[in-house]
Amino acid sequence: METREVEYAIIGVGTAGLGAFSRIRKQTDSLLLIQHGPYGTTCARVGCMPSKMLIAASDLAHAIEGGSFFGIDGNYQVNGKRLFERIQKDRAEKFVGGVLRYVDTIDNKFKVEGQARFLDSHTLDVDGRLRVKAEKIILACGSSPYVAPVFEPLLQDLDTSDTIFELDDLPRSMAVVGLGVIALEIGQAFHRLGVQTTLYGHTGRIGAFTHPDMQKDVMQTMQQELDIIPRGEFTRAVKVKDGFELTYLTTDGKEIIRSYERVLIASGRRSNLRTMDLEKSGLILDDRGLPQYDPLTMQCGNSHVFISGDATEDLPLWHEAYIEGRIAADSAVAFPAHKEGKRTPGIGIYFTDPQMACVGSVYSALDPEQIVMGQARMDSGPRHKIYNDLKGMMQVYVDKNSGILLGAEVFGRGAEHMAHTLVLAIEHGLTVGEILQMPVYHPTLEEVMKGALTMALFRLRKS
Amino acid sequence: METREVEYAIIGVGTAGLGAFSRIRKQTDSLLLIQHGPYGTTCARVGCMPSKMLIAASDLAHAIEGGSFFGIDGNYQVNGKRLFERIQKDRAEKFVGGVLRYVDTIDNKFKVEGQARFLDSHTLDVDGRLRVKAEKIILACGSSPYVAPVFEPLLQDLDTSDTIFELDDLPRSMAVVGLGVIALEIGQAFHRLGVQTTLYGHTGRIGAFTHPDMQKDVMQTMQQELDIIPRGEFTRAVKVKDGFELTYLTTDGKEIIRSYERVLIASGRRSNLRTMDLEKSGLILDDRGLPQYDPLTMQCGNSHVFISGDATEDLPLWHEAYIEGRIAADSAVAFPAHKEGKRTPGIGIYFTDPQMACVGSVYSALDPEQIVMGQARMDSGPRHKIYNDLKGMMQVYVDKNSGILLGAEVFGRGAEHMAHTLVLAIEHGLTVGEILQMPVYHPTLEEVMKGALTMALFRLRKS
Repeated sequence: METREVEYAIIGVGTAGLGAFSRIRKQTDSLLLIQHGPYGTTCARVGCMPSKMLIAASDLAHAIEGGSFFGIDGNYQVNGKRLFERIQKDRAEKFVGGVLRYVDTIDNKFKVEGQARFLDSHTLDVDGRLRVKAEKIILACGSSPYVAPVFEPLLQDLDTSDTIFELDDLPRSMAVVGLGVIALEIGQAFHRLGVQTTLYGHTGRIGAFTHPDMQKDVMQTMQQELDIIPRGEFTRAVKVKDGFELTYLTTDGKEIIRSYERVLIASGRRSNLRTMDLEKSGLILDDRGLPQYDPLTMQCGNSHVFISGDATEDLPLWHEAYIEGRIAADSAVAFPAHKEGKRTPGIGIYFTDPQMACVGSVYSALDPEQIVMGQARMDSGPRHKIYNDLKGMMQVYVDKNSGILLGAEVFGRGAEHMAHTLVLAIEHGLTVGEILQMPVYHPTLEEVMKGALTMALFRLRKS
Repeated sequence: METREVEYAIIGVGTAGLGAFSRIRKQTDSLLLIQHGPYGTTCARVGCMPSKMLIAASDLAHAIEGGSFFGIDGNYQVNGKRLFERIQKDRAEKFVGGVLRYVDTIDNKFKVEGQARFLDSHTLDVDGRLRVKAEKIILACGSSPYVAPVFEPLLQDLDTSDTIFELDDLPRSMAVVGLGVIALEIGQAFHRLGVQTTLYGHTGRIGAFTHPDMQKDVMQTMQQELDIIPRGEFTRAVKVKDGFELTYLTTDGKEIIRSYERVLIASGRRSNLRTMDLEKSGLILDDRGLPQYDPLTMQCGNSHVFISGDATEDLPLWHEAYIEGRIAADSAVAFPAHKEGKRTPGIGIYFTDPQMACVGSVYSALDPEQIVMGQARMDSGPRHKIYNDLKGMMQVYVDKNSGILLGAEVFGRGAEHMAHTLVLAIEHGLTVGEILQMPVYHPTLEEVMKGALTMALFRLRKS
């Protein structure tokens, strides 16, 4: 069997792995990229990009439905074939294409394809045909959809985000398993495009927010539009003519048996590290069976192994993968010296309607005794009134002593934009008073943000 | 004739005047509001709010036109009657209504209606039936559309922003006189709603931007959609059957004679101070015949007179009027002591498509030798590609020595939102390097802003 000895092995050629590669390549020729499965980032292939193209279509369909309020009496037909053609074409040309072209520019001597598995702390087996001995290892092998045991026998026939964008037309009906970001984005989009859709939760939690009032508002708002069954579990899934028959037992004991043409499994993602025989790596593993690591260095324990991107199972976001790949690379290059990278405040966005955005510290990460909260409903916003889009609310969390903005949960039209203004403020440690010195134009969606911040300032002064 | 002696006279009960009133009322009972014309702010009556409701409708019509790209084959009918009903109803109930209810809460002893004119520096005549002697005067009487002499004889029949939202249906055709914010917003909206529309410029300038490349990009982009004649002047305007016949002489000598059902005059606004016999006020007047004033105190010269809002003819924006009304009030209360208020960096937004936003210092206000410029085109943005909305570009201007962001001109989808993030950065004197420490989510419109800032940072490092 061939053995290659390199200074650096990078497992995974996605956003994190390519980021790490670009940094390390400047230092040395002695490195190897090991890729399992299709090239192209999760984001471009099956994540952010195709889902946002789907949502651009469903948003338009939804807007036409609401048009008569504005004096625009419209109607439409969804051309599912053209919709998926556009998604697949633009994905290939504009998004994945760029990644593949970059991968092509990398000399073949730096690339090998296959499933890597640990043999010992420095040695990797690749598909039983290559052995790689590496001084330092960067784990950037991404994640895959989690499929519960009840669905495993049908895995070849069910959909995940890996397959749903490969359709050539919309189905008549679809069950969505999950109430997280992928479930809500795709489930709502399919519903708006005329697919009879049911979303099935598990614990009753929905979406991203951690404050109970935000959770409640999201559930109520989404249930007004969508068929959502929040609590329970699937007990049976079988193939039937034209689709699948699912049996779901609600927490209060009701059995629901329904058939759907398609079933989308969107109940979270699991790190691909789980297929790498980590137990042979010598790394200290956490409860999930994943390596413990320091988010400022991405180093696993004190070892020569570094982790980044979705493989951590912590922050499955493109911009975090991008940052982490670079931090991991810089730490690996500095190793055994200790080099910390710079992390940014969190920002997470669900492109549902209303949108959901979490910025900085979410409510559950804060001590309620140490903060004051400002809150505003979107229906207080002049621009929201203009759009007749009154759904949602937002909260900002402020340190009681310093007045510094710590975080926000935003549910409503414009959440993605307010999130960016708020994250700049958090990054620079601004107080609510300082933030409120900025002018807010009238009429803009941002006036609701001003309202929430003003309430926080008022409460700060009273406290 | 009745004479009233008060400590404060406030001329105008709009955004600025009401702001001033609310501050001064806390200090004294001795004040009088003098209102000429309809109550309700310019913003709510004839400005921001009705125009944005119109644009919400025209944006939807335009989106439907572009739907087949996404697989949404739509069509629509514009119901002009319902469109204007909605504008007039929501304006009354949601926007003007709030202002009027607030005005109603003000005791009648503080209000008088009529046209105020200076008799001397402390004395005002109101409609020849009341004389007001005031220790301090706050001028907050707003502005009105400017009408060129050629149109004056037809004034009763032509439209301005004061009358255009009173229509009960869309006209077949409309000439728009002007290429500024009102002309572009309303002209583009009417065009998109099926009105045969021509926009006539004067000097060739269009929109808000001051950098020549931005001017050029706006003109090219808007001309691709709209019938725009940029340079020349009207020489004749007469009533004909079913409308008006206009004669326009282009700068290169071509005479254009066309008829339109309606004509919208949108060639700027003039301060209502011009009707107040300012020459008797003893104030020092500038070239325009308006009082010189200090923007940090809103004081006119060293006098007991303060100015605010659109009456200055400088910044006809709701949020500036709001701030200025308060600054003027605080200065007046402090007078004769000198009290400066806090001004914010500029932010101006045109709700055209693509949107236009100017933030902080515009290009023309800066010394080209002292700045580096970062630039990005919207078609570089992943989210812009998703929306198939590739028009526009943006520039950021950065101090060459300090790296501090000074201003930006933004033309494209999402300009209004990027403007808020940028203005927060400018307000707090952040450098481009500091701004770029913020995370930018993927895929968002804000990635183009990151691109422009990154180019500026790169150029800074090279310079």
